[in-house]
Amino acid sequence: MKMANSSHHVSCGLDFCSVPDIRGSLQGASEAGYDFTCFPIVHPRFKREFISGKSKERPGAFTRSDLILAGSDWNNLIVGKLSPYINVDSEDPVVRKHSEEALNQELTYANHLGLPAVMLTLRGNNQINLARIFHSKMQAGSTYQVWVHLPMESPAVAASYYHNSEEELIKLQGDINTWGWWNKFRSVCNFEKKLGLALEVTPDIPPEEEIARWMGEPIKCLVLSTSLFVTNKKGYPVLLRPHQNLIKSFASLDIQVVVRGAIRHGCSKYYQQYLDHLWQSASHTDSLLTYARGYEDYLQCPLQPLMDNLESQTYEVFEKDPVKYNEYQRAIYSALLDRIPFEEKDTKVVVVMVVGAGRGPLVRAALNAAHKADRKIRVYAVEKNPNAVVTLQAQQEELWGDQVTVVSCDMRDWNSPEKADVLVSELLGSFGDNELSPECLDGAQKFLKGDGISIPCSYTSYLCPIQSSKLYNEVRLSKEKDKHALNHFETPYVVHLQNRFQLAPTQALFTFHHPNKDEVLDNTRYKCLSFKIAQDCVLHGFSGYFDTVLYKNINLSIVPETHSRGMFSWFPIFFPIREPVQLQSGNELEVHFWRLCSKKNVWYEWSITKPIPVSVHNPNGRSYTIGL
Amino acid sequence: MKMANSSHHVSCGLDFCSVPDIRGSLQGASEAGYDFTCFPIVHPRFKREFISGKSKERPGAFTRSDLILAGSDWNNLIVGKLSPYINVDSEDPVVRKHSEEALNQELTYANHLGLPAVMLTLRGNNQINLARIFHSKMQAGSTYQVWVHLPMESPAVAASYYHNSEEELIKLQGDINTWGWWNKFRSVCNFEKKLGLALEVTPDIPPEEEIARWMGEPIKCLVLSTSLFVTNKKGYPVLLRPHQNLIKSFASLDIQVVVRGAIRHGCSKYYQQYLDHLWQSASHTDSLLTYARGYEDYLQCPLQPLMDNLESQTYEVFEKDPVKYNEYQRAIYSALLDRIPFEEKDTKVVVVMVVGAGRGPLVRAALNAAHKADRKIRVYAVEKNPNAVVTLQAQQEELWGDQVTVVSCDMRDWNSPEKADVLVSELLGSFGDNELSPECLDGAQKFLKGDGISIPCSYTSYLCPIQSSKLYNEVRLSKEKDKHALNHFETPYVVHLQNRFQLAPTQALFTFHHPNKDEVLDNTRYKCLSFKIAQDCVLHGFSGYFDTVLYKNINLSIVPETHSRGMFSWFPIFFPIREPVQLQSGNELEVHFWRLCSKKNVWYEWSITKPIPVSVHNPNGRSYTIGL
Repeated sequence: MKMANSSHHVSCGLDFCSVPDIRGSLQGASEAGYDFTCFPIVHPRFKREFISGKSKERPGAFTRSDLILAGSDWNNLIVGKLSPYINVDSEDPVVRKHSEEALNQELTYANHLGLPAVMLTLRGNNQINLARIFHSKMQAGSTYQVWVHLPMESPAVAASYYHNSEEELIKLQGDINTWGWWNKFRSVCNFEKKLGLALEVTPDIPPEEEIARWMGEPIKCLVLSTSLFVTNKKGYPVLLRPHQNLIKSFASLDIQVVVRGAIRHGCSKYYQQYLDHLWQSASHTDSLLTYARGYEDYLQCPLQPLMDNLESQTYEVFEKDPVKYNEYQRAIYSALLDRIPFEEKDTKVVVVMVVGAGRGPLVRAALNAAHKADRKIRVYAVEKNPNAVVTLQAQQEELWGDQVTVVSCDMRDWNSPEKADVLVSELLGSFGDNELSPECLDGAQKFLKGDGISIPCSYTSYLCPIQSSKLYNEVRLSKEKDKHALNHFETPYVVHLQNRFQLAPTQALFTFHHPNKDEVLDNTRYKCLSFKIAQDCVLHGFSGYFDTVLYKNINLSIVPETHSRGMFSWFPIFFPIREPVQLQSGNELEVHFWRLCSKKNVWYEWSITKPIPVSVHNPNGRSYTIGL
Repeated sequence: MKMANSSHHVSCGLDFCSVPDIRGSLQGASEAGYDFTCFPIVHPRFKREFISGKSKERPGAFTRSDLILAGSDWNNLIVGKLSPYINVDSEDPVVRKHSEEALNQELTYANHLGLPAVMLTLRGNNQINLARIFHSKMQAGSTYQVWVHLPMESPAVAASYYHNSEEELIKLQGDINTWGWWNKFRSVCNFEKKLGLALEVTPDIPPEEEIARWMGEPIKCLVLSTSLFVTNKKGYPVLLRPHQNLIKSFASLDIQVVVRGAIRHGCSKYYQQYLDHLWQSASHTDSLLTYARGYEDYLQCPLQPLMDNLESQTYEVFEKDPVKYNEYQRAIYSALLDRIPFEEKDTKVVVVMVVGAGRGPLVRAALNAAHKADRKIRVYAVEKNPNAVVTLQAQQEELWGDQVTVVSCDMRDWNSPEKADVLVSELLGSFGDNELSPECLDGAQKFLKGDGISIPCSYTSYLCPIQSSKLYNEVRLSKEKDKHALNHFETPYVVHLQNRFQLAPTQALFTFHHPNKDEVLDNTRYKCLSFKIAQDCVLHGFSGYFDTVLYKNINLSIVPETHSRGMFSWFPIFFPIREPVQLQSGNELEVHFWRLCSKKNVWYEWSITKPIPVSVHNPNGRSYTIGL
């Protein structure tokens, strides 16, 4: 059983309600193309007299022997299902007690067999004792994953369409929202990383915003009843269009599928074949996605290019961006045309300074732009990384000639021999200003003529509240790994966001303009944003983005709503919060962000004041600063 | 300046709006009986041109020199007040910027002088930047306490009585609740321990429940305007009865008083004298309070008498309880009369077993009861602590004679030579069953005749949700001190609760009966309690209590509503939660408690599911168990 889905083949499981012959069933499933199976942990034949509590007294084993299968089969191919009669939240104390014993026995046996996962079915909102027991087991080091099986939409909702009055529907409110069942269960389980969802696809499909919310949850698999399939002309099982689209929308996440129910189309392999076909048709070919594969929800510390020197491979990756340098070239082109009228094109020379030239992509963009615009330029390429300067100098000697002057110097220490018409830089991070572009360009603008142009000429950071158990657990994990580190919940991360739900539309935060003509240069910022929450959900942090105006109408953006198509140079940034905040539909979420500066550092602080106050994160930059 | 108030003299401060002569003012205040003074940090004479930002350019010092007073005077006698024009939350960016600079200058100077406290006045609900800055300063190790000055009731409320329509009042809602201002401020400051309240007593007194809520806050001082005082017949200032009662109700907390405003009664010393008089008249003489003095809000780990042996002094303290052994004696007396009718008093002998006899108080109670009832008894005194057995044996030889048999043995290992009519024990902890009385008595009941009596015959634990920054900080502090300890937020503490607010009436939790006639002896328990929250507040944990029926109508109780008057043997227990939960008026607070048992240990787990789900505390007893 593959617990991770690396290729774009669907990993598909077959569910069995009862298994008279476990070895035969397993072989049959495998021959039909399935990757794993779901079996009851306790064979119904061995069903214990658990209500009367006599199970201990009855002679003989309480389930089948582990010798029936090889260890590696138990470890890889079998998801264990709990017996359906277990009800540890019963109000009947005897049922409760015996259910606890039966549950303990089954979970202990699942651990003994080394099953990769145990599946439990959530039937309502109040399975708190069940949550406590699973939390305890996971805390005590149980080896299996826990798959919480529940319907995408409560049966009560479907029923209500036909039978319930509005009044009754409101009464049910607490119960009809199956996301609420899950949220309570996993919150009581402290968002345990081992806890995942086995989400049952229902005949009725929930509204789009509810599907988006599910997509922010740690889904391990979709469960599909064979009753959802219809028969096509050739007699094969297929899904209706709405279900097809639903399945495809989940295909971007790293999940599996389980088929359950009576085989209604001759052979179980047809379901698998159809799902595999659906999965492959959902594959994306976007260059960003291709580049980003394998980085999904992986946390990286933001670069600190001012303090550290980038490595050759980092330059190489970023230079390959198919969009970014094209747009820079267009911006420079446009600026050159504005700078020199056609009549003066043979007499005037535009001085272009590339500050932070790296291995030269912006120098190339400037030279190309000049060639295309038929304008004369003189380029200074200023770079502080001596290793990158080697590459620049080689190109200067071999290609560029006298037109380009390579300056091996930190732009903050340099004294330019002349002033520039155009200052070109690429100092932006995922959050715009977070690699200290404002501070660098404020320093560099002394090289710029009074009417000179900065490319970029402005940039804005953006913020969006998000729900993501996945990221919350990644941050928590990195905290556990690294005992000496400061608080990992006060550090932003660069991350290719996948398994998350955006709680509200993205909003603009801080803007910077260059050159900065203010009397006093002040790059501290403060803003309070207010987001309207449309559904019950959990806040785990804020995703951050930026857009920039390079020149006039030439922009770059990683804001989801306006993302420059195909550009992969920046993943979003993620600002965690220390504890998840439960939000309700209709809540106003008020968040305060500060950008603060000392002589040595720049950092962000953030705090929430509505619907509940949450203390300031990263005071004094105690956990994270960006070094000047 | 005494920062703690050990005697019952009031510690009183005098506030100055402006101080032309700081040395003279200080001396005057001292001569008038005041313990400390409140001065502006920056003398108004040195008021800086802060709006225009010219303060840096102006020559000369920005405030008075530290040489004016001796260091020890600055350190002990002066609370520094911030300049009133500082507004770091202004929407005007220039005011904001210059306010930040002025604030930083004043706080840096307060630190330089070593002032014991700095007082800021909170003027509304949105001083988030102010909160952030103070949080940063406290995090960075500022030496002063921070006193947040605000009115008990917003001026808007008083105004509204006369001017506002109900509609306008509702509009003001967010703003009229000054507790809300404070709660937002201190929450953004992460409940910093250095943060306290300087609570201004208003002409109108808020409703009782609001006063109760203030009393759960870390109040450092009450601020009294001289305008609150009226003149009595002799010409001296006095407070009206409602204000007197208000002040007295706060006298039980460890707080100070500050007098501010124009001296309207000839001399400032009259205010101090009157307040001191009020304070002393509020002194309590209850034996519990006398005994408990000095233990206020001090966290103790619950005793583990089954695993550890108590020390001589512990026995000595508990034997002095004026109530407990009286009630035991009454219970035994009543049981003896029920056990032997008058006609058989000379022929029948009642066998009394004291399990856990300690140094003998219950043996004495039994002998006294028998004497008073004129019934014959034979006593077995079973005790596992060999050190206490020494005391028992000495008394047996010198006083009790053959009537008492001392058994040096753990009651769980003992085989009694005969069965008992009455089994007497005192194994109860602050939470009833938390010292494992159920397990011990289940074991000991094999010595009891079929119709025998257990004293106590039942007990019940009680729970109450509470707000207490003080306790939250105590728990947090003990976590910081002890890096190797498990999570201190998952451990109950025994604590003499003072500075706290009960969020709802206490409710019964688990009950145990003895002898236990159930077929299967099961001391695990589970209960879900629901509390109705009447006011906006913060949940920091749950206080726990117990009551017990010793025999028939003879009870002991530490439940606040029914506390046995004068009994001091038990302080309440406190179950913390990891993170404070903000609650709103009208919320339902749903909490789940489990008592769980293994072969070696007993422990509690607790979880919240409404209004928001909070993960299970102490899973598997990972942070706290009681050893069998």
